[in-house]
Formats: sequence, structure tokens, C-alpha cells
Amino acid sequence: MNKKLGEHTYLLESPPFIAASAAIGGAKEGEGPLARDFDMIVSDDKMGKRSWDLAESAFLKTAVEIALKKAGLEAGDIDCALAGDLQNQCAAAHYGMREMAMPFFGLYGACSTMTESLSVGSLLMSGGGFSHIVCGTSSHFCSAEKQFRNPLEYGGQRAPSAQWTVTGSGAAVLSCEGTGPRVTHVTIGKIVDKGIKDLNNMGAAMAPAALDTVTAHFRDTGFTPSDYDLILTGDLGTVGSSILCELSAKNGYDISSVHNDCGMMIYSDEQDAHAGGSGCGCCASVLCGHIMKELERGVYKRIMVMATGALMNPTTVQQGESIPSVAHAVTIERG
Amino acid sequence: MNKKLGEHTYLLESPPFIAASAAIGGAKEGEGPLARDFDMIVSDDKMGKRSWDLAESAFLKTAVEIALKKAGLEAGDIDCALAGDLQNQCAAAHYGMREMAMPFFGLYGACSTMTESLSVGSLLMSGGGFSHIVCGTSSHFCSAEKQFRNPLEYGGQRAPSAQWTVTGSGAAVLSCEGTGPRVTHVTIGKIVDKGIKDLNNMGAAMAPAALDTVTAHFRDTGFTPSDYDLILTGDLGTVGSSILCELSAKNGYDISSVHNDCGMMIYSDEQDAHAGGSGCGCCASVLCGHIMKELERGVYKRIMVMATGALMNPTTVQQGESIPSVAHAVTIERG
Repeated sequence: MNKKLGEHTYLLESPPFIAASAAIGGAKEGEGPLARDFDMIVSDDKMGKRSWDLAESAFLKTAVEIALKKAGLEAGDIDCALAGDLQNQCAAAHYGMREMAMPFFGLYGACSTMTESLSVGSLLMSGGGFSHIVCGTSSHFCSAEKQFRNPLEYGGQRAPSAQWTVTGSGAAVLSCEGTGPRVTHVTIGKIVDKGIKDLNNMGAAMAPAALDTVTAHFRDTGFTPSDYDLILTGDLGTVGSSILCELSAKNGYDISSVHNDCGMMIYSDEQDAHAGGSGCGCCASVLCGHIMKELERGVYKRIMVMATGALMNPTTVQQGESIPSVAHAVTIERG
Repeated sequence: MNKKLGEHTYLLESPPFIAASAAIGGAKEGEGPLARDFDMIVSDDKMGKRSWDLAESAFLKTAVEIALKKAGLEAGDIDCALAGDLQNQCAAAHYGMREMAMPFFGLYGACSTMTESLSVGSLLMSGGGFSHIVCGTSSHFCSAEKQFRNPLEYGGQRAPSAQWTVTGSGAAVLSCEGTGPRVTHVTIGKIVDKGIKDLNNMGAAMAPAALDTVTAHFRDTGFTPSDYDLILTGDLGTVGSSILCELSAKNGYDISSVHNDCGMMIYSDEQDAHAGGSGCGCCASVLCGHIMKELERGVYKRIMVMATGALMNPTTVQQGESIPSVAHAVTIERG
């Protein structure tokens, strides 16, 4: 069963186990500082497929397959898959999952999708009836650039606040019994829009949503930043992270000593990613790779993971609209 | 709590009440046979906004507002909103819901989104902690045509199997206590792809997913078609409905005497909609308008609602891929 705490947060009275997870990265991710914690690095950005779009589907499918194998499960054991991605109509997830014959709910939370899937999955599992749920998402630099910005061949200059869409995927298997880290709390985010219209500054657009969710989480639970060994945002990058830390401190919750951001972790300064990594696959691959391994290695005991998503599309921005955002947070405790 | 039945189906041990619902339609929907059961007909297809895209957001926002008002609730009473739509990156839902400041999970199931939202919402509520959840979706003929097919000004001919995207929205409020019809069972669909590549024949692409879900539902629950007063599909239209009824009978479940389809109900033969209505707003507005009123009027005692979604995007079809589909079913019993 689940129990509501305060306004946005749910205590999972039967906290699901993260039985296994898997992360796949592309060539650039394989040259970054987290390379050794990926389960697979794919140097061919088409992964043998005839388009980047289909390659992204293959990334997700492979991440799910590896996670299932590590959990000792087969596709038929999964009660429900929860996935989504940045491609129009979430096509990467649909084509990636179509051969797996699992009951499937599609989610869309832009770059917040990984923690959205963990949130929905954990709430469903704690509510009874579900034994195994797989949560996953993906992004691909090439499929995202051509869809959201410019053809790659155009070679457009990138602003200093711009982020680099991660080519990667992550998947996690939730199980109602077993061992491993457990998802204990979920804080569901609201849509927040502070009027940012710059498609090259996603960090600034998303930071207010992260602030709203992290503040709600502390208010609802009574936790403070010192209750966490790590507060990990998805892809605020350097610009959004500094905004979040500054405003959170003003709200009475100084998270700066425990905060890190997947977008700031996945590439080194030399990799020319400007404000950091982004995309659904950023939080997914860093969480399902490096962070889950750090939990295993005993580096952390309790962490919060909060991916953030920018909820515009190119048409709405061309029509002059600002960028709504959302952030969902899950608390994960080492088993 | 929820209890799994068979392979895909969940029995909701605390079945949520549908406390209220609301439906809004455009001009064409207001000339159709279900016009009197809409809460509002909007004759201006821009609803006073500067684009069709923003008009669709306004349709959803208004449907949610009317449903809340009918339920005697305010936005702040809602624990979670579940919504999505056909616009790229589900923009209609994000811009429609951004001013409502509700915790929000975005879903994407194409035209299956209304029953996806009711499925997820009902499972969450029966799992404890949630008092009120609002589920909604929308579609708009003009925003869908320009995005998926051709500019309206092109005036392309339509195939006999083509369907007409409904301009409309529906929203339903689930409450853990109260009166009204209750959601008693949820059957989660798998992604099914039988190789259909014709964007002008969505009914044929989606019928196999509907068949898979309805067959699973009967197998899992032990129900037969005669246990239902109505088995309502979302927008299979005339082509997909006849495929479903034929194949379902071959599987041992002859649903033809209780089957109807929102896409076949919303327009009259004289309205030139070819194979019927489609779009997320089709099932949403027919269910949240006409069908909920028929339940109130005592016409039905127990119904199954199963919206179907085609999960391609224009790029995947241009790349030669076939159309994966999904269908989610909920059982609703009159209170």
C-alpha cells in the first residue's frame, strides 16, 4: 500500500527492490568519466540499423534485455513495462519494446521520464498485484538534434548554456521481493513554467520545477538535505544546477554539499558538451549504470534521484510560448 | 490494493468511483448524433487562441475544469493529473495543465490514452494514498492533420478507410470515496504489430491490439461477452471494428452483439467522416460525455471500455516501418 505524506509525496509501505539495472552508452559516453560503469558501449551510432531513430530503439531494447538477464528474468515474467522517450510520439520506446510482448504503459515526461517511470512503477508495485516491472528510457544525440534543432549537417554553433543530448539508454527492474536497493518515497512534480523561452537554455527552464519538487519533498517528509548522501538531478547541467542550489538554499534547504547532476557527470570538461549532458538517456544511463554501482559499492546509503523534463515542442516555442517543466523525485535506500 | 488475475488483468479491490466527467466537442462533433451529451460545444476551432495547438490545450483545460466543478473539487484537491495527447511531445496536455498546479504524470498511448489514464489512475488509487485523480486527453482535427498528414490547405483526398480526428476533449475525476460508477478491472495491453504500414488505415493497424487485450481480459477474468452490456472500443472505426468482431468470434468470444465504437458513434453517416472518428479526444469525449450519461440514465450496468492507439510517428512510417499498436481496457460498473 501507499500512504500520502503532505501534499505531493507518497511513502511506499512495501518499497520495491531495484533487482537489476543496465546502462548503454554511445561512443562519446564511452569516452567520458563514467565509461567503466556502462554495461555496454556502442561505438556505431546506428547500432547496425538503418536510421538513428531505430538505433535508439535498439539501445532501449538492449538495455531492457541486459537488465532482465541480470535479474534472472525473462520478458514473460514482466507484469508491466513503463517507457517513453523524446522522439515524436515516443517512437523509440514503441519500436524498442514491440518485440518483447510485455504489457506496456507509455509515459512522456521529456528528460524526467526515467524518474517518472520509477515513480509510477514503484507506486503500482507497492499498491499490490505487480511482481516485476521494468522501467526504461533512451535518447540519441542524432535523433534528437534533427527533430528538435537542426539537421546535423547544418553544423550550427552551440550556445554556452546548450547541453548535449546523451546517446544512451538505461533500464531498471523493480521487483516486489528480493534484495537490492529499495524505492521508499515518491514525490510527484507539478508543471512549472517561469517564462523561459530559450531552447538553448534548458537548465534555466527546468530548475524551477526541480526547486518545486525538492522543496515539496522536504516539506512533505520532514527530511533535510543531510538525510541524503546524494541528491542527484537528471540533466540540469551547470546552469540549471547552480540555479537550483541557490534557490533551494534560499528556501531553507541548502543541498549544495550533496547535490550532483547526471548531465555534469557524464562528460569531462574536455568533451565540449558545454553546460553538460541532457536527454532522457542522461539520467537513465547514469542512474542505471554508475549510480546503481556506487550503491552496490557502498558509497551511498540513501539518495534522492530527481530527473527534470522540459515539456515544450519546437512548434510551441516557434509560436512564442515559454517552456513548461516538471521534475519527479524518488528516494532510493541501499538494501 | 490490487490483485493480479491471470496474465494482464488487475482486480481493483478498492474500486475507484468516477465522481464526475466532462466532454467538450468542436463544431463537427456538435452536429453529430451525440451532441446533446457534450458539456460544451465550441464552434470556433481556435477557441479564441492564436493557434489550433493552443486551442487543443484550452479544450483539455476546460474539460478538466468542468469535471472538477461537477465533482465539487478544486485543482488543489487533486493528488495527480494523468494526461497526454497526439501533439509532438504531448504539448497539448502540458500547456493545458500548466496553470492548474497539480502533481502531473504525462502519458502517451496515442488514441489509447484515455483508457491508459483511467487504467493507471485506477491502479494508483486502489493502491492507496490517492484521494482524487483526474484523467484526461484531447485531440484536434487541425493540429493533428498538419502534424501527421498534410497542411489543411493542401486539401488532400481521403481514403475510404481513413478516419476523422475528433476535435474534442474529455476528463474524468476518480475519487476513492463517494458515489457513481466504479472502475473494477484493468487489463493492460501489449504492443502488437501485424505489419500494417498504411497511415490511412488505422483501424486495421489497431484491431490486432484490441483483439489481444479483449482476449486476455476474458481469459484472465473468466468473464464472457454476455457479462457486459457494452464493449466499447475507442476509435477502430468501421474497418477496425469489423476486423475485431470477426477475429474475436474466431477466438471464441463473439462480442458483436454488445460491441460499439466511439469512432462509429460520434459522427452520422452524412458527416463524411469515412471510416469514423479517431484521435485521443474521440474515446475521451464519447466516454466522458455520452457513455457516462447513459450509465447515469441506467442504460448500462457493466461496460468495458478499451481505447486503442497506433504508436508510429510520421518519420517511422516514412522510413518503411509498420505500425505498432496497443489497447488498454477498463471495466466500469454502475454504482
